[in-house]
Amino acid sequence: MKIVIAGGAGFLGQKLCRRLLDEAALTDAAGSCRPIARIVLFDQVAPAPALLADGRISHVVGDLADAATIARVLGDDTDSVFHLAAVVSAGAEADFDLGWHINLDGTRHLCEAVRTIGRPAKLVFASSLAAYGGQLPDPVTDETPATPETSYGAQKRAGELLVADYARKGFFDGRSMRLPTISVRPGKPNKAASGFASGIAREPLNGIDMACPVRPESCMALMSPRRVIDAFVRLHELPRDRLGWPPTLLLPGLRASMREMAEAVSRNAGNRKLGRIRFEVDPMIQRIVDGWPKETRSAKATALGFQGDASVDAIIKAYIADELGG
Amino acid sequence: MKIVIAGGAGFLGQKLCRRLLDEAALTDAAGSCRPIARIVLFDQVAPAPALLADGRISHVVGDLADAATIARVLGDDTDSVFHLAAVVSAGAEADFDLGWHINLDGTRHLCEAVRTIGRPAKLVFASSLAAYGGQLPDPVTDETPATPETSYGAQKRAGELLVADYARKGFFDGRSMRLPTISVRPGKPNKAASGFASGIAREPLNGIDMACPVRPESCMALMSPRRVIDAFVRLHELPRDRLGWPPTLLLPGLRASMREMAEAVSRNAGNRKLGRIRFEVDPMIQRIVDGWPKETRSAKATALGFQGDASVDAIIKAYIADELGG
Repeated sequence: MKIVIAGGAGFLGQKLCRRLLDEAALTDAAGSCRPIARIVLFDQVAPAPALLADGRISHVVGDLADAATIARVLGDDTDSVFHLAAVVSAGAEADFDLGWHINLDGTRHLCEAVRTIGRPAKLVFASSLAAYGGQLPDPVTDETPATPETSYGAQKRAGELLVADYARKGFFDGRSMRLPTISVRPGKPNKAASGFASGIAREPLNGIDMACPVRPESCMALMSPRRVIDAFVRLHELPRDRLGWPPTLLLPGLRASMREMAEAVSRNAGNRKLGRIRFEVDPMIQRIVDGWPKETRSAKATALGFQGDASVDAIIKAYIADELGG
Repeated sequence: MKIVIAGGAGFLGQKLCRRLLDEAALTDAAGSCRPIARIVLFDQVAPAPALLADGRISHVVGDLADAATIARVLGDDTDSVFHLAAVVSAGAEADFDLGWHINLDGTRHLCEAVRTIGRPAKLVFASSLAAYGGQLPDPVTDETPATPETSYGAQKRAGELLVADYARKGFFDGRSMRLPTISVRPGKPNKAASGFASGIAREPLNGIDMACPVRPESCMALMSPRRVIDAFVRLHELPRDRLGWPPTLLLPGLRASMREMAEAVSRNAGNRKLGRIRFEVDPMIQRIVDGWPKETRSAKATALGFQGDASVDAIIKAYIADELGG
C-alpha cells in the first residue's frame, strides 16, 4: 500500500506518518487490509531527517498549487492520501489570494490527481472548526450550519464540498473531518490565529514567557495531537457506508478557557521552572477567535467511536509525556 | 448606473432586465439612488431582439469561463452585477468537469472582475435550494445546514462562500439568495432536473401532453417568476447592514405536490383545451428531487419583506396572466 501525506512535513503530518508505521497496515478502498509499503511526505519543506531513516518513507518538496507535481507524486499506484496541507488561518486572512489559491485550488488539484489514479483510492481531508462562524450555538453540534466568517474557514468548507462531490460521483472514497484547535503543538508558533492555544502551555513549560492575545475567559474547542491522530486513522479505516451523508465529520473539541489552560499548566508542571503568562489582547485575533466554536459535540462522531480529550489536564499531561519526556 | 446581468439572455435574466427598466433607478454600493443608464446582458447566446430595441440595453455573447471577457464586460464603470449564469442541475450532474468549471471558476472570475472595478460595486448571486441535501427537515429553515447532494448544489454553495468572503473583505458588496424552483417558466424545457415543475403547468396549458418524471405526491418548493424578480430587486436594494451574516438569504418556497399542480392547472384553464399529464417516473430525476427541500421558510427573509407565493393557484394564474395573455 502506498500512502501520500500532503502537508507531511508539518507537525501533524510527521506524527501521522509515525503512527502509520506503527499501524503497519491499513484498509484500502476495496476493503482489503494491506501492509504499508511506502509513505510519501509531500510538503513545501523537507521532513525531519530522522523520519527518512525508515526505508518505507520518502519525501517530495513541492507546492500544492502545482498540479503536475501532485499528479507525479501520486502516480498510478497511490492507495490513500491524507490531505493536511493548508495556508493556515491568519495566513489566509493576511493573503486572500494565496489562501484561495492553495486551500481551494490546491485541494482541487489533489482531488483531480486522486481521481485519475485509475483505481479506487481514499482521500482523507483535514477540515477545520473554522468552517463555522456567525451567530453560533454553544456547543456547536452536527446540526449547526457551517457559515464560515474567515477566508480559511470558507476555503476549508469549499474543500469539503469538493471532496464530498468527487466521492459521491465515485471518483474516490473521500472523507473529511473538522479538526478542533490542536493543543498542545510542539515547536515554534505558526501563523495560525489559534497558535496561542498551544503556546499558552508550551512556552511556560519550556521556561519561556508568553503573551496570550485573547482574554483569559476566552474558550476554545481543543483536541490533543494524540486524539486527532487517532481520528485520522479511525476515519480512514471506517467502513464507507457507516459515515453516511455528508462524508464530513465534526470532531469533539473540549471546552477550555485560556485561564483553565494556564491553571492546568501550573498544576502539572512538576519541578519545572515555568515561564510567565500575561494576557495582551490582540483585537484581530480576539475577533477571529470569538467567532469560533467554544466546544463541539458530535453524536455522529461519538457513535462511530471517535473520542475527544477528557480534560484540560489530560491535554497538558499528553504534551508533557509526548514532547517533554514525561 | 451601469448594470451587468450574467446569464442575461436567459428567461429570468431578460425578465429582470425588463423589470430594471421599469424601476429606472437603483441604489449603488455607496447608498445613492441613481438612474439606470446601461444594462449589459452577458450570456452564451443573444437575448431576444425586442429587448435590444431599448437604447440602454446592450449584450455581449461570451463564456463565464473566460476571465478576460468578463473583465472587459465589467470594465471600470460597472455599479452592479446580477449573477444568474450557470450550468443547470441535470447538466452539472451529467458533466462534472463543466459544472465545476462554469459554476465555480466562472463565479470566481466574476468575483475577481467585480473586485478589480476599482470602486465599490454590488454583486447579487443567484444560488439555489439545491445547496440543501441529505436528511432534510421539513420545512427547511434558516437553521438548516446546507449539505448539497448534487454537483450543482455543491457548486452553488461554494459560490456563496466565495461571494461572502469577497464581501467580508470589502472587495465588493456581495449578496446571495437561494432560489426555490421557479415555476412556471415559459418556453422550452431546459436541462434542469426540476424542469417538470414548470412543464406540468406550461405544457397542458399550451395544449401539449406532458410526462411528469416524478410521482404525483412529490413536493417541490416553488416560487413564481414574479416573486423571484421582486426578490432580486429587493435584495439589491436592501441596506447592507440589514442582511447580516452570512450575506445569504433563503427565499420562501411554496410547498406544492405535482398532483396539486395538475389540479390547479385544470381549475384555472378556462376554455383552453388542455394537454394531458401522465406520470412516468425517471429514477434519476426522482432521486435528485427527493433530496431537495419540499418547502422553505425563512424568518430572516420574511422580516426583510421578501414574499413567497400565496398558493398553487396563484402560481398558475401568474403564468396565465404574464405569458398567455391572461
